[in-house]
Amino acid sequence: MSKSPWIRTVRLTKPTLQDNTADTDRLISALKTDLQTDAVHLDLNLLKELPEILRKYDYKVRCILFKDRHRWLVTGITGVDDPRPLAGLAVDLGTTKVVLRLLDLTNGRTLGESGFDNPQLAVGPDILIRIHFAETSGGLKRLNELIITGLNQTVQDLCRSCRLEPRDIYTVTVAGNTAMTHLFMGLDPRWIIREPYIPAVNKPGVLKAAELGIQVNAAARVFIFPNVGSYFGGDLIAGIFFAGFHKLSDPAILVDVGTNAEVVVGNKNWLIACAGAAGPALEGGMTKMGMVAGPGVVDRIAINPDTHEFDLHIIDGGPPKGICGSGIIDLAAALFLSEMIDIRGKFVPAVCGKHLKQIDGLAHLVVVPADKSATGSDLTISQADLDSLIRSKAAMYTILETITTSVGITLKDLSSFFVGGTFGSFIDPRAAIAIGMLPDLPLESYKPLGNSSLGGAALALTSVDFLTEIDGIRDRITYLELNVNQEFMNRFSAAKFLPHTDASLFPLRFLLPPIIK
Amino acid sequence: MSKSPWIRTVRLTKPTLQDNTADTDRLISALKTDLQTDAVHLDLNLLKELPEILRKYDYKVRCILFKDRHRWLVTGITGVDDPRPLAGLAVDLGTTKVVLRLLDLTNGRTLGESGFDNPQLAVGPDILIRIHFAETSGGLKRLNELIITGLNQTVQDLCRSCRLEPRDIYTVTVAGNTAMTHLFMGLDPRWIIREPYIPAVNKPGVLKAAELGIQVNAAARVFIFPNVGSYFGGDLIAGIFFAGFHKLSDPAILVDVGTNAEVVVGNKNWLIACAGAAGPALEGGMTKMGMVAGPGVVDRIAINPDTHEFDLHIIDGGPPKGICGSGIIDLAAALFLSEMIDIRGKFVPAVCGKHLKQIDGLAHLVVVPADKSATGSDLTISQADLDSLIRSKAAMYTILETITTSVGITLKDLSSFFVGGTFGSFIDPRAAIAIGMLPDLPLESYKPLGNSSLGGAALALTSVDFLTEIDGIRDRITYLELNVNQEFMNRFSAAKFLPHTDASLFPLRFLLPPIIK
Repeated sequence: MSKSPWIRTVRLTKPTLQDNTADTDRLISALKTDLQTDAVHLDLNLLKELPEILRKYDYKVRCILFKDRHRWLVTGITGVDDPRPLAGLAVDLGTTKVVLRLLDLTNGRTLGESGFDNPQLAVGPDILIRIHFAETSGGLKRLNELIITGLNQTVQDLCRSCRLEPRDIYTVTVAGNTAMTHLFMGLDPRWIIREPYIPAVNKPGVLKAAELGIQVNAAARVFIFPNVGSYFGGDLIAGIFFAGFHKLSDPAILVDVGTNAEVVVGNKNWLIACAGAAGPALEGGMTKMGMVAGPGVVDRIAINPDTHEFDLHIIDGGPPKGICGSGIIDLAAALFLSEMIDIRGKFVPAVCGKHLKQIDGLAHLVVVPADKSATGSDLTISQADLDSLIRSKAAMYTILETITTSVGITLKDLSSFFVGGTFGSFIDPRAAIAIGMLPDLPLESYKPLGNSSLGGAALALTSVDFLTEIDGIRDRITYLELNVNQEFMNRFSAAKFLPHTDASLFPLRFLLPPIIK
Repeated sequence: MSKSPWIRTVRLTKPTLQDNTADTDRLISALKTDLQTDAVHLDLNLLKELPEILRKYDYKVRCILFKDRHRWLVTGITGVDDPRPLAGLAVDLGTTKVVLRLLDLTNGRTLGESGFDNPQLAVGPDILIRIHFAETSGGLKRLNELIITGLNQTVQDLCRSCRLEPRDIYTVTVAGNTAMTHLFMGLDPRWIIREPYIPAVNKPGVLKAAELGIQVNAAARVFIFPNVGSYFGGDLIAGIFFAGFHKLSDPAILVDVGTNAEVVVGNKNWLIACAGAAGPALEGGMTKMGMVAGPGVVDRIAINPDTHEFDLHIIDGGPPKGICGSGIIDLAAALFLSEMIDIRGKFVPAVCGKHLKQIDGLAHLVVVPADKSATGSDLTISQADLDSLIRSKAAMYTILETITTSVGITLKDLSSFFVGGTFGSFIDPRAAIAIGMLPDLPLESYKPLGNSSLGGAALALTSVDFLTEIDGIRDRITYLELNVNQEFMNRFSAAKFLPHTDASLFPLRFLLPPIIK
């Protein structure tokens, strides 16, 4: 028996006149004993190859398996010493970007990774536009073809770069939001966006790659992460799985920030989730100079408390052309800690001095003057930008407070604070705490997860039992509908101050300004 | 809930903001409760249609189901009052002829029946030639296409004549011998005919119609009857199922005579089977005048004991052109009872008188003189023909004796004697008993089954639990290898007399000659 749970080496007793069990039934019987199960299934395609394979390898073969709840599926049969690789593919099916990771199924090692812009962007940048397009004649088919074709192309390229072939891929895991997984399967998404917001399916489970049009091994199975509803998708379930919530004793939290902030609190016994608009400010999409991280973009900012000079870190160096989400949070924290803005987030002209400029009657702070920027114009942040950022950070904190309060704990009770996505990877928790966007927990509590959707999809490929684990996570989630009631508004109002009206919540108020390494 | 076990009517609670379970999961959950199961599966194709169907029929739908061991599969979803028929298709996959029966799944009633010559006859009449052809390049594919194309054509014609469409067929059951089912599935049959005679599969189980190329409903499932080995196929398992062995308290026997005689003895607790060459004599394939039943063929013969005149029954009347299996057995019995042949089966010239003729030094008995035959020649039976018939009948009786002896019972202990196939439908048991081919049991023990393969396939369509029943039958069968040892030869020698050396086994020796009605 090989080490990996996805692969089993089976030695069959050879048939005789006295023991004339058929090839397939002989193999299934041996696997049932080996796996201690009563359900093993082989596809017709494998049945067609089996007689030759068994005789070629003298009845000693290696089986590639997939466990679909109580049923084991054989997805491949090779000779024991067959040198061909056995690979799995994890897919993060993002609305904007799709990322693939190829793994060696025998040991879980990453073989390669590749991403591509979601070709559905040609139809529309946001999922709402795509859903409306799906309702037009041929629209759903077109959206489905775009994503499947794009995926197949990238699978081919990725395989080539890893010196294997698509047919070496036996298992695929796909994590995406509810709408994206619907478009991926060719399912009608129209009811996702209409009250009462009903997906076509919560648990798509296991499908054949071939029926989805995915060009990998003919017998390969595709697992699609389940969703909890229209607004809490498989990408987040993958994140919870990746963070390991289902194994934690103490309550932890996971925050994923995109257009919405999606939040999960829980431990191995319970999970509660909610999603709410946190505003685009946190992703760098708000200010005039805001943009997603990339070369020439400011991602770290500090302010010298004495001179009030800006200290910038620019990705790949050179003159800056904009500022990304983490830079904006740094900026707000630095402005506040250097007292250039007050606890309401308003510019303090006496401190800002020459940095402040009136444009169209609105106060703007010049972060990079025109002669030092890549655009030839000033890079500025306006009072309106700051107000918007503060509303976003207040919404975020209020969501965090509301969800923890709903289960009778406080933010201080959280043992781990997982932060997903680009946001989690790049923000400086000290800056986020300084402005009161994230709670004042010990810094070591903050754990960036990176692409947790991809991470969860890849993690699934390291354990044949993943399906049961993920089903378990999904079924344990209680979705909390965020009611914007008086209590919520009171919390929101208190959180609209820097860091908060209740300063006792933020002893780190006296933290030194963030320093660029 | 509708009456039929294949169909369930389900009323779902409608989704609300508080109960936002997805369409698929909502339906599956209701079916799980209704069916008291934990495994219900829907194909991707149905997932695609489900949101529209549920809303169109206001969450009250009729599900067409298939039970694959522990898993329930949904193969169709319609409105409760949808007038489209729900049909099942039973297929007897014969080497020579394929017969289809269409049933109404809601009540098990036969809608229509149709047969066609197996198009693989173009490759070769017998299965051995076809298996060798399958080993040539493209041969297997060609044989598979021939049978699938032929089946699809006849399904279409049969549906048209029953005023329904192939897409109304949700379940298909297929019974055939081991080689035919392999060719039907496109499986390599070469090891079936080579020692130690190993099929590719014993229990093909349930496949999707689409993956077999069968053009019925896209979600339809196909059940292929299991085999016990290369020489005991699904057609016989279907026969056992049809005869109801698995419900009998007393031991019964089933005999199916083709090129081989296939025999099963058993009851609800045990089943023992064997197959042996019984000779083509019994199917009308031996004598020069032998032929399969059809217009102008003699199927019944009596001899006036006083005048020794022949009394013939000709199918559809007119001058006879040949004689079929049942006619030959009648003839042998009549010759023996009128003492025109002795207990060794040799002509008694003194009694045969003018009927006897020497041709090429061999005694021939003229059954129909040239001037009364359709061929313009005498229809005769030679001494060699008779010797051959007697060897066949002796082989048959010896097999019956051997199999019953092997389980410690005698032929007299059999409560029912099922006779399958054309042979069973047309022979007169009195004639077969008179020559000692079949044992001397009360006539009411003999039960012709007709096309028991088709009968079993059709019976399966009347109960959603058939798969477990058939699996159970198949697993209970012990296959008895017929060893042609001294004991067998002793029995065979004794059975080579008319009716047998031990006359006490055949009190019906004194039966009146068969009389034509």
